[in-house]
Amino acid sequence: MSCERIEVIYRLSVPAAQATHRAQLLAIEQSIEIPPEAVIEPRVLDEVMARVERIEAQTDGTSLACVALSVESVGDDAGQLMNMLFGNSSLQSDVEVVDLEVPSALATKFGGPNLGIDGLRRLLDVPRRSLTCAALKPIGSSVAHLSAIASTFARAGVDVIKDDHGWADQRSAPFAQRVAACQRAIDEASETRPSGRTLYAPSLYGTHSQMQRQIELARGYGVRMLLIAPMVCGMATLNALRREHSDLAFLAHPALGGNARIAPAALLGKLFRLFGADAVIFPNHGGRFTYPRAVCHAIATNNRAIWHAVRPSLPTPAGGMNVERCAEIVHEYGPEAMLLMGGSLLIARDKLTHRARAFVEAVHSAGRPVAA
Amino acid sequence: MSCERIEVIYRLSVPAAQATHRAQLLAIEQSIEIPPEAVIEPRVLDEVMARVERIEAQTDGTSLACVALSVESVGDDAGQLMNMLFGNSSLQSDVEVVDLEVPSALATKFGGPNLGIDGLRRLLDVPRRSLTCAALKPIGSSVAHLSAIASTFARAGVDVIKDDHGWADQRSAPFAQRVAACQRAIDEASETRPSGRTLYAPSLYGTHSQMQRQIELARGYGVRMLLIAPMVCGMATLNALRREHSDLAFLAHPALGGNARIAPAALLGKLFRLFGADAVIFPNHGGRFTYPRAVCHAIATNNRAIWHAVRPSLPTPAGGMNVERCAEIVHEYGPEAMLLMGGSLLIARDKLTHRARAFVEAVHSAGRPVAA
Repeated sequence: MSCERIEVIYRLSVPAAQATHRAQLLAIEQSIEIPPEAVIEPRVLDEVMARVERIEAQTDGTSLACVALSVESVGDDAGQLMNMLFGNSSLQSDVEVVDLEVPSALATKFGGPNLGIDGLRRLLDVPRRSLTCAALKPIGSSVAHLSAIASTFARAGVDVIKDDHGWADQRSAPFAQRVAACQRAIDEASETRPSGRTLYAPSLYGTHSQMQRQIELARGYGVRMLLIAPMVCGMATLNALRREHSDLAFLAHPALGGNARIAPAALLGKLFRLFGADAVIFPNHGGRFTYPRAVCHAIATNNRAIWHAVRPSLPTPAGGMNVERCAEIVHEYGPEAMLLMGGSLLIARDKLTHRARAFVEAVHSAGRPVAA
Repeated sequence: MSCERIEVIYRLSVPAAQATHRAQLLAIEQSIEIPPEAVIEPRVLDEVMARVERIEAQTDGTSLACVALSVESVGDDAGQLMNMLFGNSSLQSDVEVVDLEVPSALATKFGGPNLGIDGLRRLLDVPRRSLTCAALKPIGSSVAHLSAIASTFARAGVDVIKDDHGWADQRSAPFAQRVAACQRAIDEASETRPSGRTLYAPSLYGTHSQMQRQIELARGYGVRMLLIAPMVCGMATLNALRREHSDLAFLAHPALGGNARIAPAALLGKLFRLFGADAVIFPNHGGRFTYPRAVCHAIATNNRAIWHAVRPSLPTPAGGMNVERCAEIVHEYGPEAMLLMGGSLLIARDKLTHRARAFVEAVHSAGRPVAA
């Protein structure tokens, strides 16, 4: 389904009788930001002002309003799409973003993932199965400790090893030293694997310019994947890096994404994908986060759905999972997903090798067809 | 009041009996992100893990928890402070940020406003009175129309003329052409003013690298102030630009700031100031936004309070105000504030000159001492 404008579904928490009026104010707020009677140039009303397409009263007393934003108002800037989508309205307590659809041309402009799920598989040289991901924690650790953990994870056959998203350039493990040591440890361990390879995803921090330098440095050590938190650094930064480094993979972290003012299925499911996330981390249900099961499934569905010419993103459920739940999670999300664990592996302490192998084996065996 | 750690007050929406346990989980989530029993290096528990300092049950059934984050975990990156403050917890529905305090050394590192209120007054060459600000709207307008409005506002004696925050590089008024034309119109009009000058604040968009180029270009036209939306582009971007351009003023817009998950008094009142906003726009009560009066006053108080060695930011109430309310708003916020209007001026259409003069006169006269 395509459209000529950016179509946004907002939830309005106002009495149904006021919904039409509220939606009209919302359309003005998210576009021209002045009363229509103040507009001098007629083209602005016809072409630039957002339009209320339809309103549907919901059984819970809220209303859903479909508002069509002009593509012209967004241009080709990811930050500007966020601004027109929810900039001012995020300050108003009675509005939430439920869903959005963008025209094909705009999707092509933002471009989506560089590699997507198939590209990640080629980079990892692994067949069609659920992938495994482990995190280097905790912040405050020494480089020696982190690289030892990285080595253990890689020897166990973990597919992707990521920095904790709390890693920046802290003095206990500065970026340059951490990345050099962990990538080397993973490279050495990868050679012991019978098949496939392990990717290391260091955490980017700071501004676009700083990240450009971090990537340049990391590339020198052989890094092919980066962890990035688009709501912390700005969506435009992810989208720019994706353009500048079309051979690299980006693993997006939901930090600062909020709980529900922009529905996770829209934010993590669609917008992260649109702006270039090859894989999207989200807090899985049943762990220490509160996204319901249906929300998690909607994120994964949007990550993988056929959508314009945009490659799919790899859904990466995370957050308080453990080895015992692996089979359940593999069956739930299917082979086109990556399971991310951190604390529940590291709690094994001196038995980390054993625990990491159990994680990998649990994921692999859950995906294998049962012998007849 | 100073502290050795970053002290954050979180509101926990859990039963009081669970508050201590919940606060402990929060302290872990916002620092080491693994169970303490999984930590191998003892220094991490002693120095890096966040600590619950105290918990206070509230009459509304929630609890306030003071959690002390280590400075080491933040380093000198503004994005990383946001990450450690609320990165993962923003995904959890039962936590909000109410307030924060930072050590003096960290405040000095981030640096705050380049100019602050006094510096803005010097730049504008105006005495101690409430300032006026008007917005160039709507998006979709032509450059000719915008520069005509800018000229009208400047001739009326408006102190600061800002782009609408919806301006990026749209084809109807590309950044370079818009900035050149509007700055020229304002310069010409400024010459007709008996005293003071008018500053133009064009809207920055995209990434840090793009903004660097925009500022370079704008500087060439004589621009001394920039509009920036830190929650869209990332706090680190504001902080980096502030360092790179210590003679420029930054006017921060709250777009994408959310309604209350991070209390506006903390986000707009303190964090925007800390990272370098010389003036902070916030939605005033009684307009089309929903921040209560007490929240607006808390933002202004935090913008202007004596706070380490950080210069004060100029509170800039905005959003659906009108000329008739000017006296009330001037009395409410006092002379150290700037009143921002957009639509309520532009709705005058061919009487814009008259309306803009009425705005300026209303603000000036409200601040004058009454003759005895």
